[in-house]
Amino acid sequence: MKEIILIGGGGHCKSVIDVIEQEVKFKIVGIVDKPELLGSSVLGYSVIGNDDDLATLAKRYQYSLITVGQIKSPSLRIRLFNKAIEAGFIMPNIISPNAYVSKHATIGKGTIVMHNAMVNTKASIGDNCIINSKALIEHDCSISEHCHISTNVTINGGVTVESGCFVGSGAITKELITISKNSFVKAGSLVT
Amino acid sequence: MKEIILIGGGGHCKSVIDVIEQEVKFKIVGIVDKPELLGSSVLGYSVIGNDDDLATLAKRYQYSLITVGQIKSPSLRIRLFNKAIEAGFIMPNIISPNAYVSKHATIGKGTIVMHNAMVNTKASIGDNCIINSKALIEHDCSISEHCHISTNVTINGGVTVESGCFVGSGAITKELITISKNSFVKAGSLVT
Amino acid sequence: MKEIILIGGGGHCKSVIDVIEQEVKFKIVGIVDKPELLGSSVLGYSVIGNDDDLATLAKRYQYSLITVGQIKSPSLRIRLFNKAIEAGFIMPNIISPNAYVSKHATIGKGTIVMHNAMVNTKASIGDNCIINSKALIEHDCSISEHCHISTNVTINGGVTVESGCFVGSGAITKELITISKNSFVKAGSLVT
Repeated sequence: MKEIILIGGGGHCKSVIDVIEQEVKFKIVGIVDKPELLGSSVLGYSVIGNDDDLATLAKRYQYSLITVGQIKSPSLRIRLFNKAIEAGFIMPNIISPNAYVSKHATIGKGTIVMHNAMVNTKASIGDNCIINSKALIEHDCSISEHCHISTNVTINGGVTVESGCFVGSGAITKELITISKNSFVKAGSLVT
Repeated sequence: MKEIILIGGGGHCKSVIDVIEQEVKFKIVGIVDKPELLGSSVLGYSVIGNDDDLATLAKRYQYSLITVGQIKSPSLRIRLFNKAIEAGFIMPNIISPNAYVSKHATIGKGTIVMHNAMVNTKASIGDNCIINSKALIEHDCSISEHCHISTNVTINGGVTVESGCFVGSGAITKELITISKNSFVKAGSLVT
Repeated sequence: MKEIILIGGGGHCKSVIDVIEQEVKFKIVGIVDKPELLGSSVLGYSVIGNDDDLATLAKRYQYSLITVGQIKSPSLRIRLFNKAIEAGFIMPNIISPNAYVSKHATIGKGTIVMHNAMVNTKASIGDNCIINSKALIEHDCSISEHCHISTNVTINGGVTVESGCFVGSGAITKELITISKNSFVKAGSLVT
């Protein structure tokens, strides 16, 4: 099995671990987090270094994924994503076996589609996105890079979500609209 | 594999194609749309005629499904459904293998239950309905003909939805209520 | 197959039957309901006694589950649960094969996780709960005993739901909050 490093060890990381364990494509070899957490563990996986160790770790391991969450701003996930790429990591996409991703859809690098999420036909998802548990991306949507589509969100047909957006839990969008760059959509919103 | 004609080639048709391809019961032999679209294609399937060709097509193919969407009014889907029946087509129901339909539920003719939707025990769905992605129809509900239950809608236990209704994305109904004929329920509504 | 008694024969019971039939772990041997319903049946299963017969039935059958619903108050479900335990029944948990329950989550006694529900990593669910169709319990949540998390609810990461709560259909909670004992959360609410 391929070996992967997870960058960020908080609550979102736990959910990502659950998906990776179910997908059975990657073996998690360790977590990168703050220096003071070295030697601690998350769901049994050890923290083996901090951001400054990425270049060194990339010599030994080929794959990594950004596993910090994203609510107020995408900046930390963007910075870490770029740093991991520079260090030489390949950023795979991770797709839960419980998710449905149409064979007519495309998923970017370093993007995770979590349990019970769905990406319908002709949708495209950019790099370094989180499509969280039970989120629905309908046909013909375009989700740009560095977006977090939160739990149980409904993005209806033909919607464009520009880069760096956070769409809060349970939000619903009308069809065919555009959500502009770096938007913060509140949980439970109806976006028209 | 049985051959089927799809009547209507827009965005909803693309989602239907995804379901039919996954169900692997029907082979799509062509799409019926406006005359000016003859020879164009949708996800690789050719537009092979318009509404006026239905009687001719029915001599060659046994099955068809209405694949135009339904938001403001059910009238176009009703007209096409009746026209297809008159032409001699059989209107099968289509059920995504990712949907859950209770063995105690019943599904009408020409109705599609899309990916990740659920129809619970003792629910009945009429003819020519769309039960869209992730919609939930709870136990003992009765959905009449020509309704579109949109994405991620929750129809709670024992609800009656009369014919020709549109229930918008993410709407939630209280238990045991009746939604009257030809209602338009706005996305995100709580119907009590 | 193990034999089980269902205590309560209304609408919720029908949904539970559908889950038990799909799970194929227990054979339903009868339903306990009001004396005047003796001899009637629910989805083909006979009403074989009332609450006063529980001690007698427990001598013959090992397992039971509370299958009355819970909206306004948990008191009836609590009373029946305690009575069934006293009578000597084992209260198993029932998990739909269509639900996703993380192997890092824990589920209490007499709790049902219904079709298409999801319980994510490190979540814990107490005894005698209903996790209804399509409900989502995110990572690190703690749901105490005697709660009904209704259809299509989203309980986000790290939330505590204290005992005896009803969370109405489609409600969404912010992360990391606490919903206090015996709360009634209205359908469609955003709880912050």
